[in-house]
Amino acid sequence: MERAQKIREGDVRTASRLIRDIEDNAPEARQTVREIFCHTGNAHVVGITGSPGAGKSTLVNGLIELYRTTGRTVGVLAVDPTSPFTGGAILGDRIRMQRHAEDPEVFVRSMATRGTLGGLTKAVGDAIHVLDAMGKDLIIVETVGAGQQEVQIMNYAHTVVLVLVPGMGDEIQILKAGIMEIADIFVINKADREGTHKLQRELIAVLDMSPNTKGAWRPPVLTVENVYEPAKFRKGIENVAKTILDHYGHLVSNDTLDECRRRRSLHELNDALTSCILEPILNRLITEGEIERMADQLLRGEADPITLAEAIAGRYLRITSAE
Amino acid sequence: MERAQKIREGDVRTASRLIRDIEDNAPEARQTVREIFCHTGNAHVVGITGSPGAGKSTLVNGLIELYRTTGRTVGVLAVDPTSPFTGGAILGDRIRMQRHAEDPEVFVRSMATRGTLGGLTKAVGDAIHVLDAMGKDLIIVETVGAGQQEVQIMNYAHTVVLVLVPGMGDEIQILKAGIMEIADIFVINKADREGTHKLQRELIAVLDMSPNTKGAWRPPVLTVENVYEPAKFRKGIENVAKTILDHYGHLVSNDTLDECRRRRSLHELNDALTSCILEPILNRLITEGEIERMADQLLRGEADPITLAEAIAGRYLRITSAE
Repeated sequence: MERAQKIREGDVRTASRLIRDIEDNAPEARQTVREIFCHTGNAHVVGITGSPGAGKSTLVNGLIELYRTTGRTVGVLAVDPTSPFTGGAILGDRIRMQRHAEDPEVFVRSMATRGTLGGLTKAVGDAIHVLDAMGKDLIIVETVGAGQQEVQIMNYAHTVVLVLVPGMGDEIQILKAGIMEIADIFVINKADREGTHKLQRELIAVLDMSPNTKGAWRPPVLTVENVYEPAKFRKGIENVAKTILDHYGHLVSNDTLDECRRRRSLHELNDALTSCILEPILNRLITEGEIERMADQLLRGEADPITLAEAIAGRYLRITSAE
Repeated sequence: MERAQKIREGDVRTASRLIRDIEDNAPEARQTVREIFCHTGNAHVVGITGSPGAGKSTLVNGLIELYRTTGRTVGVLAVDPTSPFTGGAILGDRIRMQRHAEDPEVFVRSMATRGTLGGLTKAVGDAIHVLDAMGKDLIIVETVGAGQQEVQIMNYAHTVVLVLVPGMGDEIQILKAGIMEIADIFVINKADREGTHKLQRELIAVLDMSPNTKGAWRPPVLTVENVYEPAKFRKGIENVAKTILDHYGHLVSNDTLDECRRRRSLHELNDALTSCILEPILNRLITEGEIERMADQLLRGEADPITLAEAIAGRYLRITSAE
């Protein structure tokens, strides 16, 4: 309980350690997350995604600076769905952001895949709760790439910002991954480059053709130029910062925030059911060496996976799978 | 049983319908997959992945043509982890491959995400079994992109081919997704373009630095030029076709094929346990409206997900999650 209290007081070291424990799926972490849960739900969660090299980190930097000047507290989770093998090398550009760590009201943490697939998504969800319980007004979750995992992580956000760069040809990839449908705001970064207007026109055209899933909110296509330093003075970035807050205001005034929260709750419930129901069974099967025995049977063609799984279900479940 | 028999006889219409049923997660499909399971394990499964625009489909076309001239039967699954929304539009370039459909020994099928995340991976695994039971010597599984889902799908393959193109800057993204570690063969496509030698050098350098996870197999970096038509005459493609077969020979002679099969069996068992244990519980909770009641509790901050999930586990499981 002491740990939960420290989180609520905004203690950075406790929060960092808790997030690391969450990544490692440590059992103590689960208890603390449970304790802080009723103190969450107050932050505005902003997801920022786009291809590598789109300039997301710089954009996030600029946003942090701007929000800090208005007195808002900010938490940042930079999420890298990288394999453990390549993990260390590519997080380099995150280090720049860490300089905000000197500001006690800005909390920045990198998260990367450590173990099993899907574990990261859940860990990010829990880390958002930690930052929320710390009392951060805004939580920015930045992800790299445009895979399904990013889409899942973006489901945690109230406002999703998709960052694109002209001439990178990543539009198709983004379309493919289904990120476009979940974006509330489009930002064309490095908009001093050639191809900006073309990309902007194309995006607007695709948006016009797309089914309206955002209610009265029409996702705007904003531009940010790359030419001014420091980041907060970049042309267009103030507009991005403002539009992000506008979108939250829109959610609040249209009662869609609750819907957003509900969706997230269902996701979390699903994750929790996996860890409370499937994992203990798997652990037992592994400990008892039964998984290996079943794998042998499968290899010899003596059984098929569904038959084996139904037998396990029959042993551990109080309902049958036919129900 | 009749359906399973028809699959074993190589009936294309039955196979197509079964794969569609697998995608739709139809209960009848499960039974048929179970019946054909003991007739699988004979095909060489080749995964081909890489960014959009890397020329994978053309490469696959060339490989099909070459393998057909040696009398091998070929099955192709072109997998598109696209959201349902964008699904239809981007499968266009697959249509070219369908012309092989006139050859009864070539079976080509596109698969795309229809429903829930993760469902596609499992569906692809089952579809591979279908092609295997049909008696295809080679099964080529082509995926687009470099996300975690592609990595999962590639886990089904005995031989993984990663296709790259010079000057597309997709190396980093591939490194990030962890595909590089699982690739057995690298192919630089469109190798008449500038930057080929640089990319080749870089790949070899990264491979030299990487931990050796492939035993005695050293992943080669091959090149295919874009300038000859038809596809099978492209410079370098014969070497790719040969190296793919060499890799399989290497697996067989090093007893690593069994390891490969075992890993796949464990994956499938995990999927089967999810559908036999977690899904019936979820279905019941949904039918009884309990999921909605729990979501309400979460929204009002009256409970946390783990506490709710533990209560569900207590109700439906014969072991407790603490065990």
